[in-house]
Amino acid sequence: MKAIAVQRGESRPRVIEKSRPVPEPGSNEVLVRTLRVGIDGTDHEVIEGNHGGFPEDENHLVLGHEAVGVVEEPNGTGLETGDVVVPTVRRPPETGRNRYFEAGEPDMAPVGEYVECGIAGAHGFMAEYFVAPAEFLVPVPRESAQYAFLVEPISNSEKALDLAWSSRSTFEWQPESAVVLGNGPLGLLTLAMLRREFDRTYCLGRRDRPDPTIDIIENLGAVYVDSRETAVAEIPAAHEPMDLVYEATGYAKHAFECVDALGPNGVGVLLGIPGDWEFEIDGGRLHREFVLKNKALVGSVNSSVPHFEDARDSLATFPDWFLDALITGVYTPADVDTAFEDGDTDIKAVIEFEAP
Amino acid sequence: MKAIAVQRGESRPRVIEKSRPVPEPGSNEVLVRTLRVGIDGTDHEVIEGNHGGFPEDENHLVLGHEAVGVVEEPNGTGLETGDVVVPTVRRPPETGRNRYFEAGEPDMAPVGEYVECGIAGAHGFMAEYFVAPAEFLVPVPRESAQYAFLVEPISNSEKALDLAWSSRSTFEWQPESAVVLGNGPLGLLTLAMLRREFDRTYCLGRRDRPDPTIDIIENLGAVYVDSRETAVAEIPAAHEPMDLVYEATGYAKHAFECVDALGPNGVGVLLGIPGDWEFEIDGGRLHREFVLKNKALVGSVNSSVPHFEDARDSLATFPDWFLDALITGVYTPADVDTAFEDGDTDIKAVIEFEAP
Repeated sequence: MKAIAVQRGESRPRVIEKSRPVPEPGSNEVLVRTLRVGIDGTDHEVIEGNHGGFPEDENHLVLGHEAVGVVEEPNGTGLETGDVVVPTVRRPPETGRNRYFEAGEPDMAPVGEYVECGIAGAHGFMAEYFVAPAEFLVPVPRESAQYAFLVEPISNSEKALDLAWSSRSTFEWQPESAVVLGNGPLGLLTLAMLRREFDRTYCLGRRDRPDPTIDIIENLGAVYVDSRETAVAEIPAAHEPMDLVYEATGYAKHAFECVDALGPNGVGVLLGIPGDWEFEIDGGRLHREFVLKNKALVGSVNSSVPHFEDARDSLATFPDWFLDALITGVYTPADVDTAFEDGDTDIKAVIEFEAP
Repeated sequence: MKAIAVQRGESRPRVIEKSRPVPEPGSNEVLVRTLRVGIDGTDHEVIEGNHGGFPEDENHLVLGHEAVGVVEEPNGTGLETGDVVVPTVRRPPETGRNRYFEAGEPDMAPVGEYVECGIAGAHGFMAEYFVAPAEFLVPVPRESAQYAFLVEPISNSEKALDLAWSSRSTFEWQPESAVVLGNGPLGLLTLAMLRREFDRTYCLGRRDRPDPTIDIIENLGAVYVDSRETAVAEIPAAHEPMDLVYEATGYAKHAFECVDALGPNGVGVLLGIPGDWEFEIDGGRLHREFVLKNKALVGSVNSSVPHFEDARDSLATFPDWFLDALITGVYTPADVDTAFEDGDTDIKAVIEFEAP
């Protein structure tokens, strides 16, 4: 069976033929025939060796954590052959299930208490077939099969926004304005989610017109903010104070600049993952902003089944023009090199193992 | 009638005799005879001109925002003569009531949408009598009258901890460890609150033994952490990662150091109010900590009636030995100079207008 993997010591993915033709589902596991697997920034981080790691005692890692597939062998679980499903990403570690898995919240497990398929310590879904425990497979409608690899990234935002709303749930929060920092696929997907609940939405990028992401931003009814003209902390002066700031770039300074972009009672949501970087801040002023204006900052990583279910529902509300504009490349496994190129006009690339 | 006020251009409070003998309650207002009024760090900030401000067109500000009194004239409201009451602090601004007051959440109002009695733009309660709308008076049991001026500071922590718990309410948070940064009155009161819900509590200070605050910390069953020996970011190495960090010193760096003190899924709560201070941080690492460990930081200021009600209930659970140890000075208005001295062994000073 074909799979796309990165080898130890290499820094680009390639097609491998794994020794066993098709994986065998164990107890409570389901065999899934892969349709599509998306590529995102985390894949690039993994390939470059900056994030995640190989499964123990293995010299390669099958990539892919944004997948959609069809149940090939339900193996006595509640699923049925032909069901379209999306797998979650975290699995129990070598040491077995722990309280986070028992609670259905592996997304809240600390490092060491999980592995991540296609990212850290476990093979991913970029293969003709994969197996997964039924509890980690979320059924999606057949009609959304072609887009459903996006359920995973959307689910990360569902969780993050859940945390944000909960942090504001002790009072009558009446948010109107939101800005997404970052016009990559996750930023654009989140923008599409936020426009349902916020009167006015903004999206920050650093691209010149004409640009397909700026077109998407504006077609979603949002305002494009060019970070080269307007720094994050200047957004209130240039536009308006934000009730919510969603950081999806991993640019380290955003975590602190966003406190200034927030209006009173606002919340900043952090999803990007920066490397170490020391810099100066006016920490006294920022600390005071938090207190006197009841501001909050929440970090969020990964997601669990309920977030995937919410994401499936969100996906169904997105217009086709938006999803079609987002997916700028559909590649066969043989085209893996091109698929991972990530050029200036690329937004979202996907490897297609079988047409949905 | 006697009152303790600070005059424009002066930097220490003194007793003044206001022109009218006793204020007259307006419609829906109650006349309250003051029993005790506590002194806290905010009073010192106000006196020094670093926080708050005078009422418009007035040359003095009556101090005091931590009060307890007895209803002298209920004036047709639901209260009765002799009821022991605690006033909240925020009142509508000149421009009148706004949506925050309508929602019963003046604590969430931004600057300009409120005044604060004894702090910013409105006279406080450090006088023989004061008037307040009945909606801003919280009845307390007569038996807690002597301690009930502490309901206001406790209420600030009730609100802040509400925000903290809500921010962790999307998952099964099972917190065990908490550290309070600051062994002032608010820190110690919060420590007494936290010991009910956390298995292990810690309190950070910078005092040598023997010291009355260290005695209180240890008598509450908490561990004293000397900040001169253990920096905030080193607390996990020296003790354990914290599920909750409560910042009550206003030391600007704590807002950032506390992210390192938190364990996975932990929350930092900020209440102290620092001045501007630029310094260097490893912002990349802190940003990443937020994300990969689902950490949160919430700022909180002020409190409203429901928090005062919770605080009244919390106060009733505190042992007398604790409250008696906390209150290190009870002064008559004539002793105002001594009351505001704030010496090394002082914890909480209170002005007593009438014995409770």
